[in-house]
Amino acid sequence: MRITIIGSGNVATHLAAAFKNAGHRIVEVYSRDMRNAALLAYHVGAEAIDDLSKINPETDVFIISVKDDAITSIVHEFAKYKRLTVHTSGAVSLSDLSSITPNAGVFYPLQTLSKNKEVDFLTVPLCIEGANEEITYQLEQLAQTISNRVYRVNSDQRKILHLAAVFACNFPNYLYSVAQQLLAKHDMNFEMLRPLILETAQKVQSNLPAEVQTGPAARKDETTMDAHLQMLADDDALKTLYTLLSQGIIKNANVKHTP
Amino acid sequence: MRITIIGSGNVATHLAAAFKNAGHRIVEVYSRDMRNAALLAYHVGAEAIDDLSKINPETDVFIISVKDDAITSIVHEFAKYKRLTVHTSGAVSLSDLSSITPNAGVFYPLQTLSKNKEVDFLTVPLCIEGANEEITYQLEQLAQTISNRVYRVNSDQRKILHLAAVFACNFPNYLYSVAQQLLAKHDMNFEMLRPLILETAQKVQSNLPAEVQTGPAARKDETTMDAHLQMLADDDALKTLYTLLSQGIIKNANVKHTP
Repeated sequence: MRITIIGSGNVATHLAAAFKNAGHRIVEVYSRDMRNAALLAYHVGAEAIDDLSKINPETDVFIISVKDDAITSIVHEFAKYKRLTVHTSGAVSLSDLSSITPNAGVFYPLQTLSKNKEVDFLTVPLCIEGANEEITYQLEQLAQTISNRVYRVNSDQRKILHLAAVFACNFPNYLYSVAQQLLAKHDMNFEMLRPLILETAQKVQSNLPAEVQTGPAARKDETTMDAHLQMLADDDALKTLYTLLSQGIIKNANVKHTP
Repeated sequence: MRITIIGSGNVATHLAAAFKNAGHRIVEVYSRDMRNAALLAYHVGAEAIDDLSKINPETDVFIISVKDDAITSIVHEFAKYKRLTVHTSGAVSLSDLSSITPNAGVFYPLQTLSKNKEVDFLTVPLCIEGANEEITYQLEQLAQTISNRVYRVNSDQRKILHLAAVFACNFPNYLYSVAQQLLAKHDMNFEMLRPLILETAQKVQSNLPAEVQTGPAARKDETTMDAHLQMLADDDALKTLYTLLSQGIIKNANVKHTP
């Protein structure tokens, strides 16, 4: 397919490369900043533009990968060409797009993508949604050229997924940094915790998290929890966090879980 | 070395297997429950006992891997033999042991170990501490026969490490389960989140967590955070948790970090 990439951030960069590798043609890369447009365009053999009014309409799909609040204003610029237009956001409804252009869809990669970190795109879950079955089918076919994990997900589900991703990725990463700072404060290197972090994530690749929960809260070991709270005495926010998370684990241990 | 294992839980099981594989001789395995003692003893070619008064003193080291509050009472049973005696706990001070027997030490594996999940023990960080330099050196040598990551860690540091491990392992796993339950409630499979969880842990293997923090809080995206809190409206505990963790991320973004 002929693909136009609107945006030059992490998602735009990884998607453009994955499409290019799968044999698609990247027609143009747009960014407000010409340097960013040019850099990505160079890597995927495309034209670079920084003026949406001059966008090339000879393409099969516009993929909009910009900040959530910029999506709709951007679509207005090329809605007149009536091309298939998708956004890549977890939090924006399909209807925000389909109210502007009928050929609308969503192409949401559920992965944490950084420009300087390669990722095997075949393993990245792609959540797709189309304004009608024909579009959905078309996006599904396109998605399957770059990923082995393609899911049909409606806008309500996608919002839940986006929220769940915050709990599964952004918040754990913050807790890693809390651990790192505790170690640094006592002259220990984060290196010591890295195998533990990796193993914890690997364990839930074949188990449900509740099945492999360990630690003082899981054992209801009040002595250790009290000692830990004592050690956090000078940080009220961490103390509250420790208590809340421990209470959650204890509550979890008392209920059954649906796979 | 001749090694006696006191306990038959997750840590005892993995340590006994690692020692056996490294060519050490496991003399005896003790458990209050003879079936557990026999099962582990069978796997590592040792004798099984459930009566500490009959323990075989012909060993080089007693490795005590039982619940924290049972450690000292157990040591009293064989302190008279004056053998090297270590515990494997993150939370118990060396002095709790060395006040009973002079040949005391700590042998703490910093990893989440489950009986039914194999782990490459060479990658498991082992934190060792001895009552004197001779013991520390001896434990270091022993540790290096089963792991490539041996650290000398004193009791105060080990307690911090144990607390940090709760933040780096137990709490993230709980957040995985929150995500899993959000998905289940909306007919989505946890499978969709597994690649994200693994990639998040892999990213911090070569970066500091604060360097790779992503998500709405990291971008100070109030619109998305408000929408997420709205979606959690029926769960006060999760709402508070979401707010606290997001505040932590925002605060983190404004300070520098020590590697």
